[in-house]
Amino acid sequence: MPHTPVWFMRQAGRSLPEYRKIRAGVGMLESCRRPELVTEITLQPVRRHHVDAAILFSDIVVPIAAAGVDLDIVAGTGPVVAEPIRAEADLERLRPITPADVDFVAESVKLLVAELGATPLIGFAGAPFTLASYLIEGGPSRTYLKTKAMMYAAPKLWDALLSRLADITLTFLRTQIDAGVSAVQLFDSWAGALSEADYREHVLPHSARVLRGLADAGVPRIHFGVGTAVLLRAMGEAGADVVGVDWRTPLDHATGIIGPDHALQGNLDPAILFAGWDVVRCEADRVLEQGRAAPGHVFNLGHGVMPETDPDVLTRLVAHVHEASAR
Amino acid sequence: MPHTPVWFMRQAGRSLPEYRKIRAGVGMLESCRRPELVTEITLQPVRRHHVDAAILFSDIVVPIAAAGVDLDIVAGTGPVVAEPIRAEADLERLRPITPADVDFVAESVKLLVAELGATPLIGFAGAPFTLASYLIEGGPSRTYLKTKAMMYAAPKLWDALLSRLADITLTFLRTQIDAGVSAVQLFDSWAGALSEADYREHVLPHSARVLRGLADAGVPRIHFGVGTAVLLRAMGEAGADVVGVDWRTPLDHATGIIGPDHALQGNLDPAILFAGWDVVRCEADRVLEQGRAAPGHVFNLGHGVMPETDPDVLTRLVAHVHEASAR
Repeated sequence: MPHTPVWFMRQAGRSLPEYRKIRAGVGMLESCRRPELVTEITLQPVRRHHVDAAILFSDIVVPIAAAGVDLDIVAGTGPVVAEPIRAEADLERLRPITPADVDFVAESVKLLVAELGATPLIGFAGAPFTLASYLIEGGPSRTYLKTKAMMYAAPKLWDALLSRLADITLTFLRTQIDAGVSAVQLFDSWAGALSEADYREHVLPHSARVLRGLADAGVPRIHFGVGTAVLLRAMGEAGADVVGVDWRTPLDHATGIIGPDHALQGNLDPAILFAGWDVVRCEADRVLEQGRAAPGHVFNLGHGVMPETDPDVLTRLVAHVHEASAR
Repeated sequence: MPHTPVWFMRQAGRSLPEYRKIRAGVGMLESCRRPELVTEITLQPVRRHHVDAAILFSDIVVPIAAAGVDLDIVAGTGPVVAEPIRAEADLERLRPITPADVDFVAESVKLLVAELGATPLIGFAGAPFTLASYLIEGGPSRTYLKTKAMMYAAPKLWDALLSRLADITLTFLRTQIDAGVSAVQLFDSWAGALSEADYREHVLPHSARVLRGLADAGVPRIHFGVGTAVLLRAMGEAGADVVGVDWRTPLDHATGIIGPDHALQGNLDPAILFAGWDVVRCEADRVLEQGRAAPGHVFNLGHGVMPETDPDVLTRLVAHVHEASAR
């Protein structure tokens, strides 16, 4: 590629008027299960922004809903689990999945690969810790109190839960790879709530089982979380080819921490997009410059596109990254 | 002191039944303005847990309410500002304060010092960035979108706002010192939303003006924020004697980052308190052991006591820290 590739987490979503229009009246989970709708939503930012990759429109709770968990995605709140998992008997509500349980995802991927041509499609799954946090808390959390309490006080139950989630995630990603995605990203969005020691003991083995379980698939594996300054090395060791970095750690520092064997993805603060074009351009140039220290750099934000973002700024940013990095 | 001193952020508060009883029917802001009530609430955890310090019961928005900002503290939400500050003209709603504007705080401190005897009282203020985030967002935030947008796009307005907040904070803490507190803690709870470069450029100078402005007062200055792994060195440089560390960074790592001139405070994860006594004891011992690397260690949690915490666990933890560190 003659320039640094660029895509955005949550590039398909509420920042786009064409997304809000097509989603009107369709629930989030329902929209993830309709291949034609997934295809259109996934393609929208590719058409509009000319990003270098599409990312499958989905939600991290899609595979656990397919595994039998009664949940809904509530607008303005996030995933809400009807009966949280707090005891061993609750594990029965989380059965293994087969590719047939997520056939709508395979169908979406096939439709997308046919439409996208040379543009790669990135597959998508939540990591065991982040999925567990929703299942245990019953919804989004700021403190992860019940999640951590189980992790510390009931390590056998914790391991059983995360093992099930690792199996589900592996099947979910393998289904996407078999259907044709060119890369996968494992989102451990909330792993940054943990210290490195706790992450290594209680989380890394499960994420590693997912990432290493895909080693023979021959597609790049991206591993991302927010607020992971102290976890970056461990997240690389979990078996990723590319580590996603939020805006708190400059990419040159990050590559010093993670080492020369991993490409980096990131890491413009999504809030920068609200600061006017001069600031956006200047900060994007800084990210590109710092990214040169890494053995490979995929330009992205440091977290997802915020719904209030002006999509024209994203379009302009893609063009700028292409132009500035080709120089 | 024959043992490591220990106190807990939010030790006075909702975890205590005697607090919930005495607060019944009294709004949060109102309760911070009644010296007899402040005194009783501040003393409750000292009596119950035998901690080595009291921390003045207050809220970080108390001085900005005294400065004329129309706000309320809404149960279950947090501070809600009626008219957020978004433009230069809005700054007029934030006038300087004099000690007379916060005379209830001086009165509370005097009552407390008389009651506490040899037990030190720690004064309390929010740092300019965290205060600004409430004023700009209009309430709590997960993204600090409007705060960062002002910081990047309107640096003059930003500096004017944070300068006013630094002056207010300085007067608020000086009033507490003049009334007799033995130490002060500057809470920059949400500074961890920033990269080190942004913190150094846009925040540190204002926090430093507060902390250095108290250098001649002869009381230790503690500086704390959450998720500050990449900011620890800068937070020490801002002029603190003690840097508070959350649970994400082990204290031995932290002292390597911050250097030998600063004592540390922290850093047991408040979620550990829900994991059963064996885990609490084991993790407390780890914190004490790692704290030995620092030139001084004040045992604390890595963030505030959560309302759901069993107070008996805190009492037992204080006794354990005293006993284990005296060995």
